[in-house]
Amino acid sequence: MKNTFGNNITFTLFGESHGEAIGVVIDGISPGLTVNEEYIADKLARRRPSSSLDTARSEADNFKILSGVFEGRTTGTPICIVIPNEDTKSTDYKKTHGLARPSHADYAAYCKYHGFEDYRGGGHFSGRITAPLVAAGALVMSALEELGISIGAHILSCGKAYDRRFEDVEADIASLKSAEFPVLEDGSRDMIEREITSAKEALTSVGGVVEAAIVGVPAGVGEPWFDSVEGMLSHALFSLGGVKGVEFGLGFAFADVRADECNDAFRVEDGKVITETNNNGGINGGITNGMPIVFSCAVKPTPSIAREQKTVNYLTGENSPISIVGRHDPAIVRRICPVIESVAAMVIADMLACRYGTDVLARGFNK
Amino acid sequence: MKNTFGNNITFTLFGESHGEAIGVVIDGISPGLTVNEEYIADKLARRRPSSSLDTARSEADNFKILSGVFEGRTTGTPICIVIPNEDTKSTDYKKTHGLARPSHADYAAYCKYHGFEDYRGGGHFSGRITAPLVAAGALVMSALEELGISIGAHILSCGKAYDRRFEDVEADIASLKSAEFPVLEDGSRDMIEREITSAKEALTSVGGVVEAAIVGVPAGVGEPWFDSVEGMLSHALFSLGGVKGVEFGLGFAFADVRADECNDAFRVEDGKVITETNNNGGINGGITNGMPIVFSCAVKPTPSIAREQKTVNYLTGENSPISIVGRHDPAIVRRICPVIESVAAMVIADMLACRYGTDVLARGFNK
Amino acid sequence: MKNTFGNNITFTLFGESHGEAIGVVIDGISPGLTVNEEYIADKLARRRPSSSLDTARSEADNFKILSGVFEGRTTGTPICIVIPNEDTKSTDYKKTHGLARPSHADYAAYCKYHGFEDYRGGGHFSGRITAPLVAAGALVMSALEELGISIGAHILSCGKAYDRRFEDVEADIASLKSAEFPVLEDGSRDMIEREITSAKEALTSVGGVVEAAIVGVPAGVGEPWFDSVEGMLSHALFSLGGVKGVEFGLGFAFADVRADECNDAFRVEDGKVITETNNNGGINGGITNGMPIVFSCAVKPTPSIAREQKTVNYLTGENSPISIVGRHDPAIVRRICPVIESVAAMVIADMLACRYGTDVLARGFNK
Amino acid sequence: MKNTFGNNITFTLFGESHGEAIGVVIDGISPGLTVNEEYIADKLARRRPSSSLDTARSEADNFKILSGVFEGRTTGTPICIVIPNEDTKSTDYKKTHGLARPSHADYAAYCKYHGFEDYRGGGHFSGRITAPLVAAGALVMSALEELGISIGAHILSCGKAYDRRFEDVEADIASLKSAEFPVLEDGSRDMIEREITSAKEALTSVGGVVEAAIVGVPAGVGEPWFDSVEGMLSHALFSLGGVKGVEFGLGFAFADVRADECNDAFRVEDGKVITETNNNGGINGGITNGMPIVFSCAVKPTPSIAREQKTVNYLTGENSPISIVGRHDPAIVRRICPVIESVAAMVIADMLACRYGTDVLARGFNK
Repeated sequence: MKNTFGNNITFTLFGESHGEAIGVVIDGISPGLTVNEEYIADKLARRRPSSSLDTARSEADNFKILSGVFEGRTTGTPICIVIPNEDTKSTDYKKTHGLARPSHADYAAYCKYHGFEDYRGGGHFSGRITAPLVAAGALVMSALEELGISIGAHILSCGKAYDRRFEDVEADIASLKSAEFPVLEDGSRDMIEREITSAKEALTSVGGVVEAAIVGVPAGVGEPWFDSVEGMLSHALFSLGGVKGVEFGLGFAFADVRADECNDAFRVEDGKVITETNNNGGINGGITNGMPIVFSCAVKPTPSIAREQKTVNYLTGENSPISIVGRHDPAIVRRICPVIESVAAMVIADMLACRYGTDVLARGFNK
Repeated sequence: MKNTFGNNITFTLFGESHGEAIGVVIDGISPGLTVNEEYIADKLARRRPSSSLDTARSEADNFKILSGVFEGRTTGTPICIVIPNEDTKSTDYKKTHGLARPSHADYAAYCKYHGFEDYRGGGHFSGRITAPLVAAGALVMSALEELGISIGAHILSCGKAYDRRFEDVEADIASLKSAEFPVLEDGSRDMIEREITSAKEALTSVGGVVEAAIVGVPAGVGEPWFDSVEGMLSHALFSLGGVKGVEFGLGFAFADVRADECNDAFRVEDGKVITETNNNGGINGGITNGMPIVFSCAVKPTPSIAREQKTVNYLTGENSPISIVGRHDPAIVRRICPVIESVAAMVIADMLACRYGTDVLARGFNK
Repeated sequence: MKNTFGNNITFTLFGESHGEAIGVVIDGISPGLTVNEEYIADKLARRRPSSSLDTARSEADNFKILSGVFEGRTTGTPICIVIPNEDTKSTDYKKTHGLARPSHADYAAYCKYHGFEDYRGGGHFSGRITAPLVAAGALVMSALEELGISIGAHILSCGKAYDRRFEDVEADIASLKSAEFPVLEDGSRDMIEREITSAKEALTSVGGVVEAAIVGVPAGVGEPWFDSVEGMLSHALFSLGGVKGVEFGLGFAFADVRADECNDAFRVEDGKVITETNNNGGINGGITNGMPIVFSCAVKPTPSIAREQKTVNYLTGENSPISIVGRHDPAIVRRICPVIESVAAMVIADMLACRYGTDVLARGFNK
Repeated sequence: MKNTFGNNITFTLFGESHGEAIGVVIDGISPGLTVNEEYIADKLARRRPSSSLDTARSEADNFKILSGVFEGRTTGTPICIVIPNEDTKSTDYKKTHGLARPSHADYAAYCKYHGFEDYRGGGHFSGRITAPLVAAGALVMSALEELGISIGAHILSCGKAYDRRFEDVEADIASLKSAEFPVLEDGSRDMIEREITSAKEALTSVGGVVEAAIVGVPAGVGEPWFDSVEGMLSHALFSLGGVKGVEFGLGFAFADVRADECNDAFRVEDGKVITETNNNGGINGGITNGMPIVFSCAVKPTPSIAREQKTVNYLTGENSPISIVGRHDPAIVRRICPVIESVAAMVIADMLACRYGTDVLARGFNK
């Protein structure tokens, strides 16, 4: 399915970094949802470069809803959102055409598209394509919130800096909604910004881990083979350029514990079945168990750095140094948080629509 | 799509742990491939419990190919492989019906299927369903080998024990093919078996990490959004009961390095573009770059343990202790290796069929 | 998707006419449905050759449910139904290997599968594969009946013989359920059987038209682009070997009428919106309008006939006469009726599951 | 999948008749194809109202390619084409809001979307949405022509008027390409225009049949179950508002012939296997046999007519007369021809991409 993701609610992305416009088509959204353009603009703003620690390319993301919304509400038919590209400086990229930026998609794309790809700024591989994804995710997220489902992502670590893990997940997500910088602990921001500044000064970039959580999804959502909640989420998350690892609950920390230390004991509390711990991140056998869904994404350092690097010119077949002069982020852990939230929103919305039908976002699942 | 995975080559799984039979339908396989039943049997044997460190349930896995093979070769039409269930002791499970085994799918399945699920031995969630998956994977893997693609998985760690990482990937995979125990370093087996024995003696189980690699896939396979190689592989891998994390290349270790330390420099060598390091695990922007695809899976400790645990009876809504008396593995890291290889084989075969068409497994991609 | 059809409920077919067994995997069926094996056997009996006017090949269709049913009810996980092949006389076909039976799939299959196809009896193209399809359809149909949805198909014409069209659709479907021969008018059977006998005696076969209807589907099911009710039904119906035309409502008769003669006027009756006529066959803009869904299928004469015909031997590339000696039906209009009902059942069930969610077959859509 | 169609090449439609813009995203197109905007404009012109016999609404269809084309060639990534809506007179429709236009989607859409649908001019159900479909189809068709595949559709009948059937299909298609009016016989145009004029004068509209053909598709394309060429084509064709029947080759005329009269004898001619007749329309068992693919579509009379009709107001639940005052076509058989050609092009392109891989449109299938 390539650029379309989802079963009952689908998301189709299009566009290139330096093309005319980028956008998304969302299909399968329940009719009658209020579309709050300010809410969408706000999510887009959270993704946008905003300080000296982000890329210098900055655009207003003046999105336009071309279809699927009528008199302020979703119609139930496909919603196309388009964002024009404005601040493009393609000449930056033309100079280095043929030079494969290390750890970037340039060379792989050249092999796939035989040289016809729009190489400017990563083309269709650009992180810029996550802008319409965030717009679509925001539209879905506001509907999920009406159903009592909330989603939050924060920087868990960046280089040597770190934030604390989710504890009271619902409250933590609420605090993230109003936070200027996506961390849970007061001191984390400074620590992280120092890491990023240091990387920037060293003409390089730094990676990190983003922890995300979803609360309010009822137990019983997901499929054993193959459309598990983990499978669907990871499938979509790994589309994001920098994501190189996804784990649920304890994840890789499961490797050196024993079952008696990490099994999540069930308990009835106020007539509701809960688990005492949530090491499985709210998912058992691929299906939600009613506890918060918790996962983490490993985010690699932005591969575009100002330092000279060794590479090849794939047009000439020769080895060559490369110095990347475009505008780049010394870390994307902050900007990727709303993107990860958006991906989570779209995957969960689709899985709810599969389980509860077309009208789920309007009517909910308590039926 | 639930129990069907893949785009141009699809895999449909069916069956329950204690039902009549389990099986798989594979559709989209090129016609004319030789079907080597011994090769399949051998892969199934690698997945089978084989020592005192595995579950005591052991079955011959006498698979039967019902369709899609004629005069020893694939016809190009769907292949159904069925494996009868033989050594089933359902009474073991009936006693504990209603008691949600901690960290198992029981309770989530109950919420999803409203109590109609076959609860015996995990039903459709059972690791037993991986037997037909391995049979299907073996069939595909032998075709991939003809194309110069090979796949190997080994235990990277188990509790505190560990094996070395892949180095010369092609040679390492070759050594795994003949290895009795899936490790790369001589001493690792003892170390790992001690960990498992120790867990078993403590009436518990232990987790681990499996590292896997695929060599020989040409550059240019995969899609930017959403069917990246990472997305497709992780989607299928997270179906496996115990897998709670998937990472590519450095994965979570990307979090605290800088781009200048981890970017993979390109170099032309003997007319071929390679990377000097392979921290991205052979994938850039979701697309293969021609280097070995390397990924790791976090495997949690088998949740079924003999120790008494706290849980609920979801039929009565009461808290209750549980002592699981079935036959279980104190670790599944060994047995999951051929399963992970099979998942990798089926995902790669599907992606090659998307790129090169229906006949790719028979004719190859050098055209 | 090839051998898998459907979105939320999927059907995967496998098997060859002269292979070990044929079967189907049905995925996405609501848990908790009673599985009535007699009902399924009865539908299979209706498809089976039963008189001198059908093929002499006759098998008991001893289907076996391998998975997905527990204690007499669906579990919600995939249901595999297998039917062993018993009365196979492969030698009949070996003699004519290489001779493309005119209007059969032999030559097209040879081009597609490069000669590796199982050519015996049409292999995977055989009408025999409709047996598991009927078994699956029966399982679904009994669930639909619980929801007030009923489906019936009858022979509208066969050669020069004909039956009357549906009038009181609900009553007509009810009468078909108990009919020995699928016609609405008493005299039609004789007329039709005379046509078939005459064709048989002339060593040839004859075509016909089957008219089918579905009542009880609520208004609002289907999609404008592309998963219209017409699109989904026709997609599945055209899989059936003999079907070469599908029309809804007036169908091709729309060509020479005017809108004022054929538009379906709406009227409120007892608080319910109905149409005065039903020339659109219950579908407007691809979506159900609450009226009976009515469609017809053109069925070509069985291409296998005893008369000598001109053809080629595709193995040698030479022109050659062919005399087909296998056992064949002089008309399939009778036997295809339960198959068409089954296809309709599975398409409608899938579309209901998309609209109303996973549990629709158990809980219904009145919520 | 709803508004997305196709497996390896997908088409996603969006937009409403009176919304901001309508459009399409095409994904999976081979990289490197020359994009001829004039060719696209020309196809759009053929679909556009052009005389007093068409609707008075006329727009320039100033399409804009937002993505997927770089320096005049396809990049291999998704192509978004947008067409702004210009000549919209929404007030025409507001007056009749709530009145279900007979045989239109209004009432069915109301049931599906609970009243949130954009009711103006049919909204997402409007024939206007076929404009981007034609743009997409044209882009694909020019690539198919490079591979020697050509597609043509003509009016076979309209009311009592008729054209001759395809004879020398390749030459007939060539003649259609340059024809001002899509008929094969000189005199047909007048006859057909008289029928339309007569319907128009009678304040009604008239239906018809369109016959279409595709030549140059190699033998062996298609799947037995369920993605037959017939199944895929009909699935997409039935999306078109007015199409109520689809038949291949003889279609419904198969009903009263015998096999000896209609079987297509094979013959070797100049080393190539052909059939002497083509009653099966180039498809056997769902798979192409190398002969021209020939099919017909029944097109109902445009349901919007100026005469007063009986209907209901679904907002008030009352019976009410309706007089439709918008601008409508007294027949759509002419304008639907390029749309049917476009649908055929996209389905065939997708099926070729499934069989021959991603690069098929650029490299062809002769490999």
